[in-house]
Amino acid sequence: MRFGVNYTPAVGWFHSWLDFSASDTARDLEAIASLGADHVRIFPIWPVVQPNRTLIRASALRDVATVVDIAGSFGLDVNVDALQGHLSSFDFVPSWLDSWHRRNMFTDPDVVASTAAYVEALAGAVADKPNLLGISIGNEVNQFAHAPHPAPHDTTAEQGHAWAGAMVAAARRGLGSRAVGLEARHGSGESVPSAAGSRRPAAGSRSGPLVTIAQYDAAWYDDAQPFGPEHAADHGDATVTHSWVFNGTAALHGPLGAGSVRHGEYLLQLAAAWNREPGRPNWLQEVGAPTNVVPPSDAAAFTEQTVRHVAGAQDVLGVTWWCSHDVSRSLADFPELEYDLGLFTNDGALKPAGEAFAALARSGITSAVEPPSTALVLDDVLGDGSPRYGTRADCAPGGRFAAAWLALAESSHDGRGPQVVLRSRLADEALRTTRGITSIVEVPTDLDGTALSVAHPATMP
Amino acid sequence: MRFGVNYTPAVGWFHSWLDFSASDTARDLEAIASLGADHVRIFPIWPVVQPNRTLIRASALRDVATVVDIAGSFGLDVNVDALQGHLSSFDFVPSWLDSWHRRNMFTDPDVVASTAAYVEALAGAVADKPNLLGISIGNEVNQFAHAPHPAPHDTTAEQGHAWAGAMVAAARRGLGSRAVGLEARHGSGESVPSAAGSRRPAAGSRSGPLVTIAQYDAAWYDDAQPFGPEHAADHGDATVTHSWVFNGTAALHGPLGAGSVRHGEYLLQLAAAWNREPGRPNWLQEVGAPTNVVPPSDAAAFTEQTVRHVAGAQDVLGVTWWCSHDVSRSLADFPELEYDLGLFTNDGALKPAGEAFAALARSGITSAVEPPSTALVLDDVLGDGSPRYGTRADCAPGGRFAAAWLALAESSHDGRGPQVVLRSRLADEALRTTRGITSIVEVPTDLDGTALSVAHPATMP
Repeated sequence: MRFGVNYTPAVGWFHSWLDFSASDTARDLEAIASLGADHVRIFPIWPVVQPNRTLIRASALRDVATVVDIAGSFGLDVNVDALQGHLSSFDFVPSWLDSWHRRNMFTDPDVVASTAAYVEALAGAVADKPNLLGISIGNEVNQFAHAPHPAPHDTTAEQGHAWAGAMVAAARRGLGSRAVGLEARHGSGESVPSAAGSRRPAAGSRSGPLVTIAQYDAAWYDDAQPFGPEHAADHGDATVTHSWVFNGTAALHGPLGAGSVRHGEYLLQLAAAWNREPGRPNWLQEVGAPTNVVPPSDAAAFTEQTVRHVAGAQDVLGVTWWCSHDVSRSLADFPELEYDLGLFTNDGALKPAGEAFAALARSGITSAVEPPSTALVLDDVLGDGSPRYGTRADCAPGGRFAAAWLALAESSHDGRGPQVVLRSRLADEALRTTRGITSIVEVPTDLDGTALSVAHPATMP
Repeated sequence: MRFGVNYTPAVGWFHSWLDFSASDTARDLEAIASLGADHVRIFPIWPVVQPNRTLIRASALRDVATVVDIAGSFGLDVNVDALQGHLSSFDFVPSWLDSWHRRNMFTDPDVVASTAAYVEALAGAVADKPNLLGISIGNEVNQFAHAPHPAPHDTTAEQGHAWAGAMVAAARRGLGSRAVGLEARHGSGESVPSAAGSRRPAAGSRSGPLVTIAQYDAAWYDDAQPFGPEHAADHGDATVTHSWVFNGTAALHGPLGAGSVRHGEYLLQLAAAWNREPGRPNWLQEVGAPTNVVPPSDAAAFTEQTVRHVAGAQDVLGVTWWCSHDVSRSLADFPELEYDLGLFTNDGALKPAGEAFAALARSGITSAVEPPSTALVLDDVLGDGSPRYGTRADCAPGGRFAAAWLALAESSHDGRGPQVVLRSRLADEALRTTRGITSIVEVPTDLDGTALSVAHPATMP
């Protein structure tokens, strides 16, 4: 299980790309490496790299490559996210998508082609780095499919698949011979290995950089979000989840309640359920302890319990904590919680959550090899096999599926939460066997649940 | 009369601030100086300099100061615009005004304070430069008072005055002892010199950098635009106009029709009418020959005739042509006309309009000392003295006032268009005397006119 940190530069936050400093970067990354982390995730600002649709700044790409090299000098691998896009409540949208130039960023052919050109160029700029962990298409880009982010918001799920496929293909072109995966052709299944096949090698043994799509949790919890579980599971080389308990989870369960400290684990099991390929790695790419719902005094315990539960899931590529450094109080307008998510303070002092993280990293904690044998059935289809609207609401914090999963997890003999199996795939015996599922549990019919809203009012990292 | 050029960097357009190159800048400015221009106007990109509300990048300010120095080395003065904001159809709005952080940029107290801090810092960064012509608050910032630019769009005229006053004051704080003006207190008149006073010295003799507000022509032509003539005339040290004949003028009059080649002159006379202080300088800060309505073969003639008519107006601070260099075809998404507005091609060849401009600059052309003695009355008030909605539509291309002014201009014995006097100030004999107005003409009552729309669909520089 990879153990890493989302890197938030101490000086100037992500605006530091405008004044790139190798020494500032080195100081931060040295601190991160000292925790025992094996990787960082980094975030170029899209309009800084691509200020005009047809201008991709070579110097900006060089800065990204330099960060990867500096990280390598401290033994850190690097995941590079392309489309930021959105970071900690702030949007960074190129001027060629604003006002007179407003277009659907997921469907306009010129925009998609130029966005792909950026993703390809960015991947190409770091393709030869031995410590490149992977390329994510962008940080929670699915936020741009709805308000308050710039309109239009008329993207369909199918258009989302076309976009995701184009972006993953672009990243792989950039990676060239180092790309490890084939894009699962959504709906065709042609390039998806047979579910009856043997389990893939463990995630950690993959040899090349991974291409991934990073979505925020509306993909899993909000039926109205055009980007959903299949976008996470059908594209790229791993299924990415971001766990933020300010989504209602902590309000419902308390900061150290089982539902809170198991939220990362739960998302990983949801991810595994939607994967078409058993053994596809699942990556908890963001998880943090937001102070608006987790008091600082609970942050260390939250961190440790979250990671230990995550390790109980199967096929875990890794966990990447958000984030390395507190945001400087000299910068304005961040939601309050964003200032205090660091494992380090802004001036580099290790915080209790950082100590907990480091202890876990150094403990050699690994994720489970054998999957939990019990699986809870998720009703993703209606009786006639057609997709069921409401599936995602059931999965959201407070939803009946979420409640049933949590109850099962808390009553399990080994403390591990159950796997999840989709109703639509329940009859696939080979799949169940490959996934190691020997016991099927249905959500109790008398269980009621009311999904909490997963809207994120100014609190979304 | 100052003679200058709006500087559009040949390499990377305004995105070149992200990769600032002193040598690229020097090559461009040397070419501009070779035309006989005495000044340039330059445009930092707001979110590049102030990416967070409380982060004003020192290195970005240094780059601006360096450009001023380089210009000085070629004998060029420099006007620095602060809030871009909007340039050639593209918006550059900081992330702290977008999506979760969307606020009214003209009224939100935190935003206004931080915007003022930027204006002050920018002015301060160049305050000691002997060749500083002035500080403009920003390029056509009034565009942001309405769609398609980011909402909210509920700014009132009074709020616009408060904002403009705050920005001008900030610029003057930045300029310190070099600031030349006192802010005219809108509505109070306290600090406005008496209209009966003697005419001020000619614009060119002012000693310190000027602070100005730059608006696009909806301020003069669109009654619904909250920023109007009084915002132009009541704030700062000169009244700025931007003349773009793609606003309907050229469609109505033809590319070389009198209404087109007099459009700059006309705006200067409108500006003078709204000035509370006789002799306040008026600056035609942008005028260009857009190829969508002025064929390239007419560009030189359009340039020459425009400048000659401008020189017929009184109290002309100067004319600043848009722009120095064509936009590179390697950059995407500009409205077609924007690629071809340069006096130079993108690779530095002088174009016919550039030759015409240079010939005028070298001819030592000056603006008139004595004002035209005839003035046309503009109905800015109703019979009861209250402001009249529709005044600005009358002034717009095709409007009855515009038509009457043009007819009078074309029939004048010396070829100079008439002055304009507001109905609300018509009884002020001292003002008329100071302005040199000896003959009053009313718009013929039988004259009809239909104002053309001044909306700017994707064609606004």
